[in-house]
Amino acid sequence: MPAAAVDPQMGVVRTVKELRARVDAWRAAGLSVGLVPTMGALHQGHLSLVERSNSLADRTVASIFVNPAQFAPHEDFGSYPRREETDLELLRRAGCSLVFIPAAVEMYPDGFQTSIAVSQVSQGLCGASRPHFFGGVATVVCKLLNQARPDIAVFGEKDYQQLLVIRRMVKDLDMPIEIVGAPIVRETDGLAMSSRNAYLSQEERIVAGRLNKVIAEMADRLQRGGGVAEAIAFGRAALADAGFSAVDYLDVRGADLLDDPGSGALSKNARVFAAVLLGKTRLIDNWPVEINAR
Amino acid sequence: MPAAAVDPQMGVVRTVKELRARVDAWRAAGLSVGLVPTMGALHQGHLSLVERSNSLADRTVASIFVNPAQFAPHEDFGSYPRREETDLELLRRAGCSLVFIPAAVEMYPDGFQTSIAVSQVSQGLCGASRPHFFGGVATVVCKLLNQARPDIAVFGEKDYQQLLVIRRMVKDLDMPIEIVGAPIVRETDGLAMSSRNAYLSQEERIVAGRLNKVIAEMADRLQRGGGVAEAIAFGRAALADAGFSAVDYLDVRGADLLDDPGSGALSKNARVFAAVLLGKTRLIDNWPVEINAR
Repeated sequence: MPAAAVDPQMGVVRTVKELRARVDAWRAAGLSVGLVPTMGALHQGHLSLVERSNSLADRTVASIFVNPAQFAPHEDFGSYPRREETDLELLRRAGCSLVFIPAAVEMYPDGFQTSIAVSQVSQGLCGASRPHFFGGVATVVCKLLNQARPDIAVFGEKDYQQLLVIRRMVKDLDMPIEIVGAPIVRETDGLAMSSRNAYLSQEERIVAGRLNKVIAEMADRLQRGGGVAEAIAFGRAALADAGFSAVDYLDVRGADLLDDPGSGALSKNARVFAAVLLGKTRLIDNWPVEINAR
Repeated sequence: MPAAAVDPQMGVVRTVKELRARVDAWRAAGLSVGLVPTMGALHQGHLSLVERSNSLADRTVASIFVNPAQFAPHEDFGSYPRREETDLELLRRAGCSLVFIPAAVEMYPDGFQTSIAVSQVSQGLCGASRPHFFGGVATVVCKLLNQARPDIAVFGEKDYQQLLVIRRMVKDLDMPIEIVGAPIVRETDGLAMSSRNAYLSQEERIVAGRLNKVIAEMADRLQRGGGVAEAIAFGRAALADAGFSAVDYLDVRGADLLDDPGSGALSKNARVFAAVLLGKTRLIDNWPVEINAR
């Protein structure tokens, strides 16, 4: 039983001042602190991050903030699911010690004008189709890390490029925090858990379950020595067959730097990355290609 | 006698790891820490920042790093004065406890790709003539603050726009550090002390001493109710008369936000800002206009 699970009263704070008072008290008591930033609408994937944090730190803070800076005007900021009471109950059961739920004005008061850009790992994949996205993510995560000042912060590998952007920012800015990546949690049919899965119709939900199978098959072909160009061609055809509306991207990139491995057989560990549209819903997923483990 | 002055052995470290070990030891002993970031080539202005830090914190760390990211290719990065031994002796006498002198590769290792932009207060004045400058300053100062994790950091008002950019960044990113501004230190004739004054010929040095008098006269006219446009016209004529080669900018801005106060009489505190060329040397200075104190 991790130490954090014994905290009987999960706190809820809405200001940086209250957050710091709670975290400072833990620090003064010699306790270590983990942070799990979320946008709420929690599912088992998020709760696995809390469990991971609890296994590494004495206390876990989760934040719930739907960050306007990482949505473009045409995206789903307004309709993004918000259900605070359910989220709080899930976090309580997962052994979270404190939840930070700031209002937008607490995060971005009048006169706010600072932004952080991480250039190379932000390029391509989600950075190409959502050019505003990683700047918004980097800036808000930097703020959350400075607000909570945790020892560790846990991010899911579902947003793999985001994880690399945050790792790079924390390293480049010398922030004294360990960034921990946690594996994707999947539904029974392998669909990566996502708050946006709630947008899917029953019919779309069945199609959605094919995405992970296609990219897993691509990874398998690459692991067996197949070429990158052939794997992508196979994947595009398979996604069209499965009934996805459109492919935003389907690509293979180096697992650490997101570098382009060329079109032939892989010489080092990589990852298959996919973003597809199913009706109006955008789904992303990724799968490891472990060449060095062969 | 400030506490820091009793530190008999000023340390010199060149890596973040050593810096943190020293600062962590102070923290463990309950001592507070001030940081004074510099580019070396120290003069009495820098030493006044160390003294200010010593008056506010138990220990003072000075950094010496000529930051390549804040120089454009045509600027004086290569010729910027470097004289480590003299600087160390001056810091020792000023009561500095520790000097951090990182190599460029310690600050910007391979793969570095993160940058910080502060939009509004970076615009105009030095931000117009040196568009690369404040991004480079904000990024390196963020790194230094995260590396040393001081309670306070002291910056001179000579680089007044830089002070506002750093204040804004620290506030916007929720960095738990107090940014302290310290007054300009001037030579006998009022010339603001600057490492770049060393570039001036004997003749230029005499002309340089007129800059502060012109902007002080502008401030006086504004304080007595004169219009901004008239004050600037007076200043431009006076600088040309004095023998400056060119005026990069001569402007009046709000003291807190650097906002444009319009062309008429001032309704709130402001500041006169000047950047001039004297031969190849660029000199900057600024002067307060205290309307509210009338």
